[in-house]
Amino acid sequence: MKCLKEADIKNVRIDDFYWNQYAQLVDDVILDYQWELMHDRVEGAEKSYCIQNFEIAAGLKEGEHKGAVFQDTDLAKWLEAASYALAKKDNPALEKKVDSAISLLAQAQEKDGYLNTYYTITGKKRWSNLFENHELYTAGHFIEAAVAHYSATGKKTLLDLMVKFADLIAEVFGKGEKQLHGYPGHPEIELALVRLYKVTANKKYLDLAYFFVLERGKKPVYFETEETYRAKQFRIPGFNDFGLDYCQAHLPIREQKTAEGHAVRALYLYTAMADLAYAYEDMELLEQCKELWQNIVQKRMYLTGSVGQAAYGERFTTDYDLPNNSNYSESCASIALIFFSYRLFRITGDACYMDMVEQVFYNTLLSGLSLDGQHFFYVNPLESVPEIMHKNPTFRHIATVRQRWFNCACCPPNIARTLASMGQYLYSRSDNTIYINMFISNEATLALDSGQVHLDLKAHYPDTEQIEIRVSPEKANQSFRLAIRKPHYVSSFTIIINNEDVTYQEDKGYIFIERCWDREDQITINYPLPFRFVYANPKVRDDAHRVALMKGPRVYCLEEVDNGDYLANLKVNPKQDVRIIEGKGILEGISLAGLKAKSISLTEGTSDKLYYDSSDAFSVEDKDITLVPYASWNNRAEGEMLVWMAED
Amino acid sequence: MKCLKEADIKNVRIDDFYWNQYAQLVDDVILDYQWELMHDRVEGAEKSYCIQNFEIAAGLKEGEHKGAVFQDTDLAKWLEAASYALAKKDNPALEKKVDSAISLLAQAQEKDGYLNTYYTITGKKRWSNLFENHELYTAGHFIEAAVAHYSATGKKTLLDLMVKFADLIAEVFGKGEKQLHGYPGHPEIELALVRLYKVTANKKYLDLAYFFVLERGKKPVYFETEETYRAKQFRIPGFNDFGLDYCQAHLPIREQKTAEGHAVRALYLYTAMADLAYAYEDMELLEQCKELWQNIVQKRMYLTGSVGQAAYGERFTTDYDLPNNSNYSESCASIALIFFSYRLFRITGDACYMDMVEQVFYNTLLSGLSLDGQHFFYVNPLESVPEIMHKNPTFRHIATVRQRWFNCACCPPNIARTLASMGQYLYSRSDNTIYINMFISNEATLALDSGQVHLDLKAHYPDTEQIEIRVSPEKANQSFRLAIRKPHYVSSFTIIINNEDVTYQEDKGYIFIERCWDREDQITINYPLPFRFVYANPKVRDDAHRVALMKGPRVYCLEEVDNGDYLANLKVNPKQDVRIIEGKGILEGISLAGLKAKSISLTEGTSDKLYYDSSDAFSVEDKDITLVPYASWNNRAEGEMLVWMAED
Repeated sequence: MKCLKEADIKNVRIDDFYWNQYAQLVDDVILDYQWELMHDRVEGAEKSYCIQNFEIAAGLKEGEHKGAVFQDTDLAKWLEAASYALAKKDNPALEKKVDSAISLLAQAQEKDGYLNTYYTITGKKRWSNLFENHELYTAGHFIEAAVAHYSATGKKTLLDLMVKFADLIAEVFGKGEKQLHGYPGHPEIELALVRLYKVTANKKYLDLAYFFVLERGKKPVYFETEETYRAKQFRIPGFNDFGLDYCQAHLPIREQKTAEGHAVRALYLYTAMADLAYAYEDMELLEQCKELWQNIVQKRMYLTGSVGQAAYGERFTTDYDLPNNSNYSESCASIALIFFSYRLFRITGDACYMDMVEQVFYNTLLSGLSLDGQHFFYVNPLESVPEIMHKNPTFRHIATVRQRWFNCACCPPNIARTLASMGQYLYSRSDNTIYINMFISNEATLALDSGQVHLDLKAHYPDTEQIEIRVSPEKANQSFRLAIRKPHYVSSFTIIINNEDVTYQEDKGYIFIERCWDREDQITINYPLPFRFVYANPKVRDDAHRVALMKGPRVYCLEEVDNGDYLANLKVNPKQDVRIIEGKGILEGISLAGLKAKSISLTEGTSDKLYYDSSDAFSVEDKDITLVPYASWNNRAEGEMLVWMAED
Repeated sequence: MKCLKEADIKNVRIDDFYWNQYAQLVDDVILDYQWELMHDRVEGAEKSYCIQNFEIAAGLKEGEHKGAVFQDTDLAKWLEAASYALAKKDNPALEKKVDSAISLLAQAQEKDGYLNTYYTITGKKRWSNLFENHELYTAGHFIEAAVAHYSATGKKTLLDLMVKFADLIAEVFGKGEKQLHGYPGHPEIELALVRLYKVTANKKYLDLAYFFVLERGKKPVYFETEETYRAKQFRIPGFNDFGLDYCQAHLPIREQKTAEGHAVRALYLYTAMADLAYAYEDMELLEQCKELWQNIVQKRMYLTGSVGQAAYGERFTTDYDLPNNSNYSESCASIALIFFSYRLFRITGDACYMDMVEQVFYNTLLSGLSLDGQHFFYVNPLESVPEIMHKNPTFRHIATVRQRWFNCACCPPNIARTLASMGQYLYSRSDNTIYINMFISNEATLALDSGQVHLDLKAHYPDTEQIEIRVSPEKANQSFRLAIRKPHYVSSFTIIINNEDVTYQEDKGYIFIERCWDREDQITINYPLPFRFVYANPKVRDDAHRVALMKGPRVYCLEEVDNGDYLANLKVNPKQDVRIIEGKGILEGISLAGLKAKSISLTEGTSDKLYYDSSDAFSVEDKDITLVPYASWNNRAEGEMLVWMAED
């Protein structure tokens, strides 16, 4: 079994009209802003206490632990995102901050390698409430940060600290008689340990990850028997109501064939399962991963690539249950879906997984972030009516405008680290094949068996249909294969090289071109990307008799600022030509969509009742409506939003 | 200002094909069943502890108080319902139970008249947490029971006890310097005190009710300042999050113009406000009541006459926010809407209020009760998909089958007392006019200035269109007026007396016939009651592009047992003739509706994906569907249910 490698983000320089605005926010705004937040220096923001907790744990300050039990992970995710930024561009000021944070962290770490400010400060018993207290989750995020930092800078400062911590964890947990047979309530460390294995080549970490995964859900379930769990030393209110499926411990792991429970937990776990299936050539586990993935994307996922149909438990519910306004659809869960999908793509080479990575990137990942870089959605509904969200507590988890960074801030730094590292998704490679996965303008250098290859890709995707790729191999007449993804929504296409037809083969959603490449070979691809009306499976009751509009991977939506309120009353005939409208202002360069719709309203002069015995009271008018990318919504004004429109 | 009087339930004998099955359940099943439940003698049922608490408070047993802080009200509501049953029919066995309960209650009452087993047993400070602890609410229900018992039996045993209690409350609460300026967190005692005033003619009780109402919401708000409220001596979890609007204390009472907060609390309060507006000729308060009522029925009420759009806080939310599957729509709230509407009808004589009483009676009141009399809905959604309700915690408040009587059992005894007392709603009267309000077969005797009148009404409403009323005045050629309600859904009609045309006048939705009545005068009314398709105001997003089917006051729904699953995929063209189907089995004698619909499904052989780029994957088939009364749903099998159908 052989797996595709992801691109090294150091060697992928993204310079894309559309993506720059988001990627630059990470480097220019978000990292600095979060740094100040973690230091409690942002006026008007809720206190984070994150750095203060480390200072207290390090003995530099007196005080109590404050904030969430997993507050440390803010620093971990920041370090990871900062490392990616450093990988791409020298930044001495940022590097200094990173080094100072690592130095603080070293002082907060206990002598045996243990790191967790909540337990160090409170002196409570370590590993005594795995169900709730996020110790292993926090460790996982620090290990990920360490791997990213080492890969970016070559410095082992953070890596050494986390190796020591991982070694401690490997002593405490395992199959041994004196070891704990537990596993994290919130999976994360499993995928982190796989990453640690990759940079250290120490198989112990891989084995530990495999142990954590395979132990999960075995009877009797660890969470029901762990000694001090019952002692309830620290309880997240209401947590106990969630049940074992909430953290994927309801069944022995190999019997889990449907996505259940807390969506982020589930997808972090499945991501590690995919890694481990490959590492151990565990074909049963790989098939199970594919089955879980199919269950998600073919039965439990929103069109925007978001998951988690219920707010209570932030969880998966059941097949075809996709309410558009009471859902959770957490940004972090979509990010985890990117992780899981990309793992499966790299193992299988099948574009269906990459299609999903792209769908999340263009929709829910970006919708989580405002164009000022300082406001975030945690929850990403497909319908929003501000007045109702404010007044009906069923929807109280839904913010109608993006929020400033919160105290419990999982999503913003997760969005930041994902955007900062997106170069790795653009290309994959095997020994002598380069996979071109997404059409975001960039320059990249990739190493193949036949030699290095420089690629210069130019696109304005999916607004325009042409993709230009200049291929510059290290050697003249270098022989290798290019595999260009043909997205599922592309039916016919043209591809030429240096203005000439080219022979190619299609397999698993990729167009393979094998030839001796000359320096400056120019590939021109034309993927027709018309606006298209999309339908949900008739089993999705919430989307019955409705259509959505897409262009390429991009989902569109109606906003009140363009179309007035009561969007639910519009009806759209999908048998119409969509008019392309050039976006203006912050939507400049983006294709908006113009549609003709019917608008139903009370006939003027009719008395305003709640119920009518006939439709005579209503008038139907033609109305021109405008749709904008879902990712861009809520950047101009608070107001109604709607993805699934009534079909006329 | 003069108010219509309700009929005395003693003098209205209901004998109606449709209603008998429900009314007899109260007398034959529910009262006995609840009696056993309160004594903890029903195997398999959750313990009530209700009687046991009284025994402990009375010193007859040792032990702690158990159950809800308002557990006593189970007995109060049972006493009220049992009294109505005794009013209608001698029942020595029941009377014996009633007397024994009153005797127990007398022993549990403290010397100064105070009655509340929670406070008596725990010894906690009375009246110290009005916001949460339901003391005045509980008192209100006992006062209502006492009034009902006295009116039914003429015995003053319970009334004397409650007069003593009310006198104590009137000492504790009031404007005086040493009195508490508080009012109940859960309104109820206000309307009970008005009832107590009516049987005692002691204006003190009326004044106290008026005080409670007018004090509400004054700044500073009592609940925010009550001394021991902050002491949190007993807290209902999460209660404090609800806010002052939850219990209608967010604004001074006279500034409250929209229905807010907990729906039962709101409507009990508004009911008392209507009573007091009349009693004090407080026209401002009356106008406010009308405005609140309009706000409810024209902006915040379901077609089935239910209210409370959100489960969290069991509350009103905002105008036109009417989700069909996440709503609360508590049975008790609909009952309170009957109270409020009937008060306004009696003050104004306007049929619009009576229309609403009828709409609730025929829909949400009955849907709360199973045809075996032992299972109940608290929550009455307009859409149900069992699998989703079970798996998606957004809908966890929704039972997909009626439940046995619960520990916290507000709705079942409330349904019982309302059905037991429904005779009072059938007729109202002024000095020399009888109002015939609903068309439920019965015989009644009403006293007018001109003499007694006996009415024998025969109908099978709304299944058949003819209503026969035999009028038998005490005297020959007795002159008086009959006012027959013409429901809002009736446009044309015929009315004849003794097969001859008759002169009448229409006013405020009533047909007035003034004449000298002969013994055995026979009125025959024909109200065309075709099935009709109903539309919601276009501002109701949840019902956009949907229709519902009604016949008279009765709302119909689709059930899975008749039509298969995925009801949301059906589309119905409202421009079709509705086929009447005779109900069978438990639906015998009831008109069901047959419609032609289009059913959308995946074309056979199409791969089962979640999203499709065109509608080619779907097939549309014609399908005959059957609708049943909403009130009858869920009596044959668990399954999907849908009121608002997609419009074709």
